[in-house]
Amino acid sequence: MEDALQRFWTALQQVGALAPMASESVPVDQALGRVTAEPVFARTSVPHYHAAAMDGIAVRADETLGASETSPLQLAVGTQATWVDTGDPLPPDTNAVIMAEQVQDLGDGRLEIMAAVAPWQHVRPMGEDLVATELVLPENHTLSAVDLGAVTAAGHTCIDVRCRPRVAILPTGSELVEAGRAPLQPGAIVDFNSVVLAGQVREWGGEPTRLPITADDRSLIRDRVAAALEQHEVVVVNAGSSAGSEDYTASIVGELGQLLVHGVAIRPGHPLVLGIARDKALIGLPGYPVSAILTSEFFLKPLLYRLQGLLPPDRPRQKATITRKLLSPMGEEEYVRVKLGQVGQRLMAAPLSRGAGVIMSMVRADGLVRIPRFSEGVHAGAEVDVEVLRSIDEVRKTIVAIGSHDLALDLLSNALARRTPGASLASANVGSLGGLLALSRGEAHLAGSHLLDEKSGEYNVSYIERHLAGKRVVLVQLAGRVQGLIVPRGNPRGISSLEDLARDDVQFVNRQRGSGTRVLLDYELTRRKLDPRRIRGYEREQYTHLAVAADVASGAADAGLGILAAARALELDFLPLFDEQYQLVIPREFYESALLAPLLEIVGGPDFRAEVDALGGYDVSSMGRVVWES
Amino acid sequence: MEDALQRFWTALQQVGALAPMASESVPVDQALGRVTAEPVFARTSVPHYHAAAMDGIAVRADETLGASETSPLQLAVGTQATWVDTGDPLPPDTNAVIMAEQVQDLGDGRLEIMAAVAPWQHVRPMGEDLVATELVLPENHTLSAVDLGAVTAAGHTCIDVRCRPRVAILPTGSELVEAGRAPLQPGAIVDFNSVVLAGQVREWGGEPTRLPITADDRSLIRDRVAAALEQHEVVVVNAGSSAGSEDYTASIVGELGQLLVHGVAIRPGHPLVLGIARDKALIGLPGYPVSAILTSEFFLKPLLYRLQGLLPPDRPRQKATITRKLLSPMGEEEYVRVKLGQVGQRLMAAPLSRGAGVIMSMVRADGLVRIPRFSEGVHAGAEVDVEVLRSIDEVRKTIVAIGSHDLALDLLSNALARRTPGASLASANVGSLGGLLALSRGEAHLAGSHLLDEKSGEYNVSYIERHLAGKRVVLVQLAGRVQGLIVPRGNPRGISSLEDLARDDVQFVNRQRGSGTRVLLDYELTRRKLDPRRIRGYEREQYTHLAVAADVASGAADAGLGILAAARALELDFLPLFDEQYQLVIPREFYESALLAPLLEIVGGPDFRAEVDALGGYDVSSMGRVVWES
Repeated sequence: MEDALQRFWTALQQVGALAPMASESVPVDQALGRVTAEPVFARTSVPHYHAAAMDGIAVRADETLGASETSPLQLAVGTQATWVDTGDPLPPDTNAVIMAEQVQDLGDGRLEIMAAVAPWQHVRPMGEDLVATELVLPENHTLSAVDLGAVTAAGHTCIDVRCRPRVAILPTGSELVEAGRAPLQPGAIVDFNSVVLAGQVREWGGEPTRLPITADDRSLIRDRVAAALEQHEVVVVNAGSSAGSEDYTASIVGELGQLLVHGVAIRPGHPLVLGIARDKALIGLPGYPVSAILTSEFFLKPLLYRLQGLLPPDRPRQKATITRKLLSPMGEEEYVRVKLGQVGQRLMAAPLSRGAGVIMSMVRADGLVRIPRFSEGVHAGAEVDVEVLRSIDEVRKTIVAIGSHDLALDLLSNALARRTPGASLASANVGSLGGLLALSRGEAHLAGSHLLDEKSGEYNVSYIERHLAGKRVVLVQLAGRVQGLIVPRGNPRGISSLEDLARDDVQFVNRQRGSGTRVLLDYELTRRKLDPRRIRGYEREQYTHLAVAADVASGAADAGLGILAAARALELDFLPLFDEQYQLVIPREFYESALLAPLLEIVGGPDFRAEVDALGGYDVSSMGRVVWES
Repeated sequence: MEDALQRFWTALQQVGALAPMASESVPVDQALGRVTAEPVFARTSVPHYHAAAMDGIAVRADETLGASETSPLQLAVGTQATWVDTGDPLPPDTNAVIMAEQVQDLGDGRLEIMAAVAPWQHVRPMGEDLVATELVLPENHTLSAVDLGAVTAAGHTCIDVRCRPRVAILPTGSELVEAGRAPLQPGAIVDFNSVVLAGQVREWGGEPTRLPITADDRSLIRDRVAAALEQHEVVVVNAGSSAGSEDYTASIVGELGQLLVHGVAIRPGHPLVLGIARDKALIGLPGYPVSAILTSEFFLKPLLYRLQGLLPPDRPRQKATITRKLLSPMGEEEYVRVKLGQVGQRLMAAPLSRGAGVIMSMVRADGLVRIPRFSEGVHAGAEVDVEVLRSIDEVRKTIVAIGSHDLALDLLSNALARRTPGASLASANVGSLGGLLALSRGEAHLAGSHLLDEKSGEYNVSYIERHLAGKRVVLVQLAGRVQGLIVPRGNPRGISSLEDLARDDVQFVNRQRGSGTRVLLDYELTRRKLDPRRIRGYEREQYTHLAVAADVASGAADAGLGILAAARALELDFLPLFDEQYQLVIPREFYESALLAPLLEIVGGPDFRAEVDALGGYDVSSMGRVVWES
């Protein structure tokens, strides 16, 4: 990657494409956030006269000599003393101000003072703030609100700032459709990369132009790139998701100019194209969203800052403990997105999906962890260096929930963000048992769990005693809910019981091992003496209720075990089978912390209870009750 | 201050004026930086179908069982295998993709594979990224570029965001004039506070309206405030600089609503007014710019964030070593602006002007140091807690120059910012000797100095040997320059020599003790046996050449000793008297550092030499030469 960047910049430098942008003059009050193109020198001094700094009388200091409490001195108004307000110019030949409170008006045009004053007392001398011709701001300076005030004070009404670098973004791919063009056909992909890229360009001080979606037609793409090169400093071609389409970009770059780089050894991001045409930068970004986002971070961002005479702001770095083992992708360096959470004394980094297609992994990410080429990867519990994407203070205000997923957790997350500005709940869905293990490793503040003890019929307690031995824990009821079979609308296979899952014409979708739903299924199969091997699809595991429902909705499965809310969300049918309890497992140290207080207050209040009740299929009667504690 | 804020917020809460803003729907691609007013749930799943993740053939996994290198398996195109590109939907009943590279086309409608595949291999299952109904973003979330992409992917073209809080800014004061209305009369003050306040409101997410400058006319101010309350969430009245004008604000707040706070014990900022009228927040900010800036930071900023459902971002804090003693202003807490610099291992905080009228102290500030009420102040060398206003990385890229001032240093500062994005030179003007002392305390990277040794006639060396004993130092020539008397245009007093300074009708302005110019003056007075006590104004000290020139320009003085460039800057006359050398004193550790390399390169190059030469009065022939080293 370093190599690719180096080659790109050297070539850009040679054709003068790294020179700072030309300047334009804008009114000072519209220049917030812009970058100075010239140094700003003061036109006038500030103040431009000697100004009284107090309300009182202006005097000549040497005429006050000898005044004291025991021998007050009298001054004649007009000749020896002049009343001034704060900000007034000193009359000629005066050089000090005596505060009104220290002056007695004798009423006959004479004033009495009790103390001598030093020259220039209570005077703001001309040029105290700025002297004409002094440097106010250098060039290449990003203008803050305070800067605008200083520039105005210095006598300017307009200011020369750098033009914003113009970036054309061309989304290509015959499969792309514009957002909002419903209904969406299978195979059609909404172009959202260009929305992200345009936003990035704006965040980095550039002026984006989103060109129309362009089908995989080489000559059309070439013509649009060539036209865009006329009007923009940088042209970005975003390849479609088909593997061949970035080759178009590479060959077009070669035809219009010089192809410098095709492919970099980073993941996500591999199929990147860098080139120069008509002395402009031409960048081909990969089609997968995470690849596009990261490669534009690495290659477009520094270029846009450079064109404005700036360096990109450094992102803070933090040491954190990685929660899962990360294998190295041999031969490529990888940027793994992580969710950060301050749990007790440790900053934990939980890896998010590594898929290049999963934009939510960027939305949820608090940081990036770089795994170098040819490294051995990172083992769980190792300390890693995280490039932090959010403010670390925000991270510290984040409640980390790892465990079983429930739609009520999404609502809780939102209720928290609504109630307490700055607070957030981040949840990772790894199933109930995974959540208890995360708590035992000190990776989370709480875990949603619904693990049935097959002997006692109780939920969670025996699992907590086994996996969190020695930890003091509070178990809080969230909701009773119904588990059942999620089937397509109209139930075309006529499924009516668990036994039907063993039929040859029924494709099942399962939950992952360690999830409460899986425990429940296996318990019920054992009770019914049903052999899991007879269930087609038993080995296909999904990590959330919604993912199970999605499989049923797409036709990939005919049935899955899950909750009513998931079925209802995707407008599927639901056969209720079992009642169960979904609870929050919370170590006492966090239960009593200021961090969790607003969340527990929400769970104990009537508003949230009503909100969950409205989802349907939940028993909210005991919501917020402590059902067990150790 | 805490108390004032508390009283204000409690009162606002009671009238519902802290409730988050209403929402408006905006197109997603125009929502960058806005704040969600509602949670965003996915409308569609992403992908919304099972998608091939590779170019290849879509198959049913169970039909590939048994395939191996020794016993390849043949599949019929159309019935058993379908060619797909990345992103294509899987044909019904297929559940895996085999990469094209691993398929041999036998050419007769049959394909050969060498390995079995697991179900769902190389498939992006429906909902991998987002499942319909899933929470994408909670409310009260500030939208990044990546978020916009996720919201688009989730099927939204518009998004409900919070309306921006509208803030009216009313500049009051009969002395105020609009910027650009030249010529400026003595006593007139350009209204630049409203430019700063409008910029701050924008930085904090609000929508500012700058109302016209309004003279000190109580009923006119009251009418404009009353009208503004109709259209805005917050009305800010910026008092004029006269001490009485904020009383108008207080009495108007009392008339229109409820006056809650009048005056807070902070400096700068004391005469603050807080109130409520028509269920809206009404804030009266002080007239001095630094007071206005800081009080709006303390009181307006948290309010605007709260109205958007946000918390203001926390500013980073850093420990630093204070370079000068700070006395406590008894009874008030004070916010002292400091310039930060990383010098060797230590982060140094140099206090800037404490005047409430000096906006440049905010422009130059890297941080704020709070001196609590009734504290004993801070002694030089003490560790202080700094609220950092710039990124600490920028601070670390700042070269700190403390010492004598020369206009060439301003040019050097700008040349550095132009040449090296991110680099900056911050200079504090304390005179030559002050600079050497700062170097000896490890507070600066370099010092500009022109200290004449009265015996040897050499510059700086003997002073360095005395004050920087034991430090290895490099002395770099910047420029030879001429010192002389700066006098008003036309030289009305007919001054022609140093001897004339002793005349009764001549008012002099001096430089501060320890400055090279002062050393020169005292040396020449001694040589001429002139008694300083005979010079009127000898005790009036200014800290820079430009400040001396400003005194002459304003008529406060008839003559001052300084350099030609300063006289020329303010269009004054100049009587050349002495040649002297202005040099840079640089400890070797910094001379050899990467931090100073670009600066030394500039000083050694022809462009900068030409730039300084163009100022006039400089001998640039030896610029950049090392004249001495230890």
